[in-house]
Formats: sequence, structure tokens, C-alpha cells
Amino acid sequence: VTNGSKVMRNAGFGWEGVEREAYKPEGSNFSAVTRQVLLGEGEGEGDLNAITRYYEIAPGGYSSLERHQHPHTVVVLRGAGRVILEDTVSEIRPYDCVYVAPNCLHQFLALESEPLGFLCIVDRERDTGNPAGDEDVARLRANPEVAGVFRR
Amino acid sequence: VTNGSKVMRNAGFGWEGVEREAYKPEGSNFSAVTRQVLLGEGEGEGDLNAITRYYEIAPGGYSSLERHQHPHTVVVLRGAGRVILEDTVSEIRPYDCVYVAPNCLHQFLALESEPLGFLCIVDRERDTGNPAGDEDVARLRANPEVAGVFRR
Repeated sequence: VTNGSKVMRNAGFGWEGVEREAYKPEGSNFSAVTRQVLLGEGEGEGDLNAITRYYEIAPGGYSSLERHQHPHTVVVLRGAGRVILEDTVSEIRPYDCVYVAPNCLHQFLALESEPLGFLCIVDRERDTGNPAGDEDVARLRANPEVAGVFRR
Repeated sequence: VTNGSKVMRNAGFGWEGVEREAYKPEGSNFSAVTRQVLLGEGEGEGDLNAITRYYEIAPGGYSSLERHQHPHTVVVLRGAGRVILEDTVSEIRPYDCVYVAPNCLHQFLALESEPLGFLCIVDRERDTGNPAGDEDVARLRANPEVAGVFRR
């Protein structure tokens, strides 16, 4: 449409005109994660303050264990997995919605048997993530609910 | 979680703690639409600039034909339908993503045989919608692609 509106068709959790990128350009505290920016960073999308990304974690993979000031809105689209929010673990499945509050330590993990795909909505203006520190890790290790789940 | 983070589980396209509301408090230019605000308007969610809503249009129903300054990010979750963007009609299915640019005349319609459920993400601060005017309607009626599709 001449005013910039558009429909981006999905096929197999890929979208027309959207590149499947590495989760982060570097780092070793995550595994088997890809990122697709659906809307917000493309040409003509500067009127969006919200950036909508689709992350997919392959079976057995996980995102960084980290915290940051900006909140996340997450809606699961595919597969199954778990989310760590501070000192809790929750199983998540399609259409479950997760709010990651400011500065909440968090990590998303796919099951060993299934991928985990989810939308993650953030503001255009936001801080970068800070990986979990040694104190965080010591605290999680001392918590039986989380100790066997988190990955660093 | 004490910091406000939470998991809202989904069952049948309803979410824990989320009310299914009428699409708009009044009006006659839409039909069979419900609205669920997943995140952004609840207590402790004030750090979110993005508001994430789930709209569901029953078979044969439709949203208002309208335009507004604020853009929409839409991701289809369920069913099948069509979207009008100015003078175009596109079929939409699960996971298709739609960008509704500022001031673009738009309408979402479910098929007669299926509901249409989609996430719609907007900024907290936004203008209200303006229904299509007589000039819009005359233009759409003159366009064979849209004439038989739009509803007013």
C-alpha cells in the first residue's frame, strides 16, 4: 500500500521480507536462538515505538540469563519451554503471555524435545541487557526450584 | 513474582486474569468483536509503553472501517479473514503480520466460516479512531477489489 501499510505473510515461522538473524552478534551465554524483527526496524516503520520480534529457540537451547531496565511483553507462538523469572520457573506453551518487569532476571529455555517460538515486544528506546552476576548465580544455585533449570 | 513479572496462561484464547470486553463501548459500525487487553493497562504494568491486546472477530463479523494517526502492529493468531488497507484487500491467516501505517483506512473481517483472532499492539499514548467518511465510502464503492468486501 502506498502509505506504507503492508501484510507480511508467514510460512513455517518465517515472514516475507524478514531476515532470520543470530540472536546476538556475540557471546557464549546462550544457545541455538534466532531472531526475526517483524516490525519496527524496517524502512518506513519509524512511526512505531514498539518493536516486535520473533525469537525461536531450538530444542535444548536457551536465551541469555540477564536483566535490564526495559520490560518485555512475550506471547508464545510455537512449541514448549520454560521461563525463569527471578527465583521462579514456569512452563510455557502457545499463547501464554509473559510480562518481564523492569530489572527482572529472566531466561527462556526450549524443552529438549521441542523448539520454543515467541513474540517479544520492546520499546525502540531501551537499555542493553546485563548478564546475571556471580551473586545471581549463587542465589539460583541455592534454590532447588531453579538450580537444575537455568543455564549460564 | 514479587517484582511484578508474571505468566498469564492461555486456555481457548482466554488468558488468566484478563477480561473479555466489548470491542468498543458503543457504535454500530462493527459486529461481533471482543477485546482482551493482555498487557499494559493492568496494575503494575505502567512501565510498558506498548499495549498488547487480543481481538477476536466471530465468523462474519468485522471491525470498524476507520483511520487514526497511531500505527498498529498486528499478528494473527487464529482463524482466517481479510484486512482492508486503503484500497486493497488481503487474506490473512495465523502468524501473518500486518502493519497499519498512520492514517491508513483499515478494517479487519472474519470469514463467514471462521473466527479471526489477532494481537494488536499500540502505544499507550494514542489518538482515537475516525470512522470512514462519505468520500472514503464512495471511493471504496467505486473500486471493484474492495466494493464487495468492506462493511460500514
